[in-house]
Amino acid sequence: MPKMNEKELQEFLENEFVQCPILVEKVEPMGATIRQPITDAYLRPGGTVSGPALMLAADAALYIAILAEIGPVALAVTTNFNINFLRKPAPNDIIAEAKIHKLGGRLAVGEITLFSEGNPDPVAHATATYSIPPAQ
Amino acid sequence: MPKMNEKELQEFLENEFVQCPILVEKVEPMGATIRQPITDAYLRPGGTVSGPALMLAADAALYIAILAEIGPVALAVTTNFNINFLRKPAPNDIIAEAKIHKLGGRLAVGEITLFSEGNPDPVAHATATYSIPPAQ
Amino acid sequence: MPKMNEKELQEFLENEFVQCPILVEKVEPMGATIRQPITDAYLRPGGTVSGPALMLAADAALYIAILAEIGPVALAVTTNFNINFLRKPAPNDIIAEAKIHKLGGRLAVGEITLFSEGNPDPVAHATATYSIPPAQ
Amino acid sequence: MPKMNEKELQEFLENEFVQCPILVEKVEPMGATIRQPITDAYLRPGGTVSGPALMLAADAALYIAILAEIGPVALAVTTNFNINFLRKPAPNDIIAEAKIHKLGGRLAVGEITLFSEGNPDPVAHATATYSIPPAQ
Repeated sequence: MPKMNEKELQEFLENEFVQCPILVEKVEPMGATIRQPITDAYLRPGGTVSGPALMLAADAALYIAILAEIGPVALAVTTNFNINFLRKPAPNDIIAEAKIHKLGGRLAVGEITLFSEGNPDPVAHATATYSIPPAQ
Repeated sequence: MPKMNEKELQEFLENEFVQCPILVEKVEPMGATIRQPITDAYLRPGGTVSGPALMLAADAALYIAILAEIGPVALAVTTNFNINFLRKPAPNDIIAEAKIHKLGGRLAVGEITLFSEGNPDPVAHATATYSIPPAQ
Repeated sequence: MPKMNEKELQEFLENEFVQCPILVEKVEPMGATIRQPITDAYLRPGGTVSGPALMLAADAALYIAILAEIGPVALAVTTNFNINFLRKPAPNDIIAEAKIHKLGGRLAVGEITLFSEGNPDPVAHATATYSIPPAQ
Repeated sequence: MPKMNEKELQEFLENEFVQCPILVEKVEPMGATIRQPITDAYLRPGGTVSGPALMLAADAALYIAILAEIGPVALAVTTNFNINFLRKPAPNDIIAEAKIHKLGGRLAVGEITLFSEGNPDPVAHATATYSIPPAQ
């Protein structure tokens, strides 16, 4: 059973990331889906979403999947992040689906597939590792 | 000889990345150094710089090093980006030093070392690959 | 329709990788599964499979998935490879399942999930990029 | 001061990696250089060194740099490994130069530059993270 539901995660996010309006769409065991509304701030010339905006969405999606499992007290930090950019995204919202591969005592590892809303082919795929602080 | 100097790169950046005030500090053969001024938008609770802000600085630094070599006509796009977060940054400007490992006809590969101004130990280290469009 | 079937891929592999007896288990659209028989050469003290043996299996699985799509004439080469080690493998055969995310004109990108035979939890997860040579 | 010298590391390696004759060339603070003699087992058709052979050399070089710092009792394991292949290596020995970026209580992170003997341009560049077991 996840330790936080969508509403609790959304409230937590809004306190932590005041500047980045990310929406929690779905939380499930060992996974989460978020939506990153795309505004002009995230667009590059030509109307495509910037690479760093995709990285932000990917990082946030896995962070939320991990928080849902370990609860809000933890201060997980990213230690490694790797992303492959696959296709030029349209200027639509980004949907990021995170899946946890391993939730260990010290490290959590997962992958994130990124979609441009309305297109079934992923625009990017990322993997990331979070360091989990020792339980107190 | 680089094809663009610091001033030309700075002007190009300001048109491309209206939202991200990145400063070109130095361009040299197969390398570049940039400064990312850190404002509240980039801070996380506790006063540290967010991971995505570091990714943005790393990606931009290598992009500038490549543009300096191939000139402003090219539409290089990142295909792979990998970052290791090493130390919690202080809320200071981020200095990103990029070095090109390979500048091929189709791909450019390089590494970026990220510093928090005033601390000689790197806060993160990244590698990235850019796809170079065919010459016309 | 894949351009090579399991038997053709197996014959191709045996000529290319004389030293590494890898078995093609399954080829499907945009994916392939291989088995790497584990012999003493791949074991570390304590009876676990070495990291480089897992990397070899991952790289080979995606290579085979790509060859199945583009045919045996192509000389695809790995340009980027990233792997997260998740769990200590038992000294059993390694099963590597590759899935292609993108098969472009110049680059192919995919992911590989690695299992130790008999355990449903993956022992490692990798992503890789191959450069596809220009068609002649 | 490193806790193990070249001779001690070489003996340790020969017990751990019976199958892989890797030679410790140099150990220095937070860094090490190794040589991987290239035999037919590591060659691909066309006389180039296989990707997995380069990965093995990179992984071993950083492992040795870390062991030199923390001593032989530790059972460090690779958690993440990322490599960019830059140039086709000639069928010569591989020289791998590892540099530690961070040696923390739980994780060590570093980079490895790989050369084909006789060529000053690197053939590959890797980064890796090792998990350090808790001190006893």
